[in-house]
Amino acid sequence: MIHHVVSWTLREDLDRSASIDRIRELLTGLVGTVEAIRSLEVVENVAYPGKNQDVAVVATFDDLVGLDAYQVHPDHQAAAAEIRGLVTSRAAIDWER
Amino acid sequence: MIHHVVSWTLREDLDRSASIDRIRELLTGLVGTVEAIRSLEVVENVAYPGKNQDVAVVATFDDLVGLDAYQVHPDHQAAAAEIRGLVTSRAAIDWER
Repeated sequence: MIHHVVSWTLREDLDRSASIDRIRELLTGLVGTVEAIRSLEVVENVAYPGKNQDVAVVATFDDLVGLDAYQVHPDHQAAAAEIRGLVTSRAAIDWER
Repeated sequence: MIHHVVSWTLREDLDRSASIDRIRELLTGLVGTVEAIRSLEVVENVAYPGKNQDVAVVATFDDLVGLDAYQVHPDHQAAAAEIRGLVTSRAAIDWER
């Protein structure tokens, strides 16, 4: 199983909860569309604001082939493009467990 | 339950696997010493090298009080100080699930 965590810091000139809601809407909307997704949730940071990232997607895939299928899927590409307009930094990590 | 993920990019002038091994040794060594840790593993990135972070600690705590106890624990402080010398970036997120 591949665990996929991408975290972002949000643009401060935009409404924080609106940005989180939109990111959640965009990415959870992919479940059922992108077959490779085994689980996906968008989580909000609850500690050390300003030092921590603000929001993250936490997802799982069967394997790297599934992760790649998710990454290149046109609906994910569109979601990622919109998310890039809401954030100021991105950090991703994928691990096997 | 608080989920805690801190990911790093590693200094490229240092040996990558030696750095990952040392981070793993430092942080897994806290299990049993820092009572608040409920689970902790150090994971290596397996996808999109150069774009993704390189390594992360993935841990859980009962609550924010437990997370804080971990953060301020002298053994964790010492480990974090050494890790800062091995990495070029850090991204952290803590969420409740």
